[in-house]
Amino acid sequence: MDVSWLVRDSILLYEGKAKKLFETDDPQIIRVKYLDQATALNGVRKDIVLGKALLNNQITALVFEQFKLKGIQSHFVEKISKHEQLVERLEMIPLEVVVRNVSAGSFAKRLAISEGQTLEFPVLEFYYKDDTLDDPIINDDHVKILKIATEQEITTIKHEAYKINQTLIELFKKIDIRLIDFKIEFGRRKDGTILLADEITPDTCRLWDEKTNDHLDKDVYRRNIGDIVPVYQEVLDRLEQRFN
Amino acid sequence: MDVSWLVRDSILLYEGKAKKLFETDDPQIIRVKYLDQATALNGVRKDIVLGKALLNNQITALVFEQFKLKGIQSHFVEKISKHEQLVERLEMIPLEVVVRNVSAGSFAKRLAISEGQTLEFPVLEFYYKDDTLDDPIINDDHVKILKIATEQEITTIKHEAYKINQTLIELFKKIDIRLIDFKIEFGRRKDGTILLADEITPDTCRLWDEKTNDHLDKDVYRRNIGDIVPVYQEVLDRLEQRFN
Ligand SMILES: Nc1ncnc2c1ncn2[C@@H]1O[C@H](COP(=O)(O)OP(=O)(O)OP(=O)(O)O)[C@@H](O)[C@H]1O
Ligand SMILES: Nc1ncnc2c1ncn2[C@@H]1O[C@H](COP(=O)(O)OP(=O)(O)OP(=O)(O)O)[C@@H](O)[C@H]1O
Ligand SMILES: [Mg+2]
Ligand SMILES: [Mg+2]
Repeated sequence: MDVSWLVRDSILLYEGKAKKLFETDDPQIIRVKYLDQATALNGVRKDIVLGKALLNNQITALVFEQFKLKGIQSHFVEKISKHEQLVERLEMIPLEVVVRNVSAGSFAKRLAISEGQTLEFPVLEFYYKDDTLDDPIINDDHVKILKIATEQEITTIKHEAYKINQTLIELFKKIDIRLIDFKIEFGRRKDGTILLADEITPDTCRLWDEKTNDHLDKDVYRRNIGDIVPVYQEVLDRLEQRFN
Repeated sequence: MDVSWLVRDSILLYEGKAKKLFETDDPQIIRVKYLDQATALNGVRKDIVLGKALLNNQITALVFEQFKLKGIQSHFVEKISKHEQLVERLEMIPLEVVVRNVSAGSFAKRLAISEGQTLEFPVLEFYYKDDTLDDPIINDDHVKILKIATEQEITTIKHEAYKINQTLIELFKKIDIRLIDFKIEFGRRKDGTILLADEITPDTCRLWDEKTNDHLDKDVYRRNIGDIVPVYQEVLDRLEQRFN
């Protein structure tokens, strides 16, 4: 295996709130390094959380591997260390695509639908990923006016998001977890193909224990319920026990 | 003409921020009395504005009459006094349907599209009309989940809204006014028909003078630019000169 991408002086492409992106020798491939860091309120709150990088890197790798087996393509190439993975470099679409199966969080508050209420069908939402605007919720017309995506791309993204939802529901059901909602991001390959990217972790999903309704996700941090490391570890343990 | 609805002790059905609704002898018909009152910031700011009732009652009556000539049905029955009109009583759909031709107001701010920029196509938005929730912007999925309207009704509402936009653009163009955006509301007849209701006035439209770009609408009040009475009067004068 070529390990040239491991050199410490490889070029940093982007430093995000949860990950750093680095160039590799292959211009089509980037190295994602997960960070021991948690943020909330669009970065206003920020803490070092030792052990989180390792957990999220492993969880998202396992999920994308399972997706591949089910025919859902993603940017994931391979996990290369405890806290790093290689992914296809894409032109990111600045949308946070949210799918909700159960009312929770901002949705529950915005629409006064009490948290925990199962929705009659999965609700899809677009947020414009722009920190300076505080990621506003937008509709299809806004996506088109802002030239974020074409009508056809919107159709593809929605179709993929619903398929991903079904697959994730089944995956988590097998480890006694209810998928409440999640956020995904997509990117474009050079040829225009739309591909699932970024991460799928307890940072980006709401996961409730099927029996206790305990939060097994970032709400533990957002709501100061306790440490997230043992909680994320629990999710990884269950995933590994079932799928490895 | 039967004037029994004029009796002062007819039952008040609703007191809004801009109008009062009264019962009439006909259960299908209500009397709308426009108020000399202006509000902003969801009612937080509120002022008495003498002369506004009369202007808005006349403007909306004239617009709905013109609509009828163009084949756009509405709840409007007849103007019965300077500040009152009869309308069909409907089961209101709690949506503020907004159509935008040019970036302005909250849209400009939310998406950082500078005010005054012409949009490539009319952008349609739904706001959930609920004062306790501060009228949040919602998408089609939310409309369905909240059971505000069915998928088919959403299609009808959008279709009507675009048609109304085209008709309003042409109407205002004839009096040298640019239609920037507007808000409309719809209601259901007993038989399920969807009908344009509420009002179309400078309270609910953004209207810019074609030559000067002067605001001929409620932004004059919202932004403390000056008195709205002479401004609304100007709109009414132009409409009457052209259409009466
Ligand atoms: N395959 C990919 N190619 C290029 N960029 C990607 C790819 N996958 C994810 N990204 C981008 O990498 C960045 C990851 O950063 P990170 O998630 O740490 O923070 P952020 O997204 O900026 O902040 P937050 O997620 O809190 O809003 C994001 O900008 C994401 O869109
Ligand atoms: N044909 C109709 N039948 C029944 N109700 C109607 C009809 N047309 C309009 N309405 C309702 O009448 C009320 C008019 O009130 P008004 O516009 O003064 O204040 P508001 O809508 O409560 O407040 P705001 O418009 O500032 O949000 C609204 O609730 C509107 O939905
Ligand atoms: Mg991110
Ligand atoms: Mg109103």
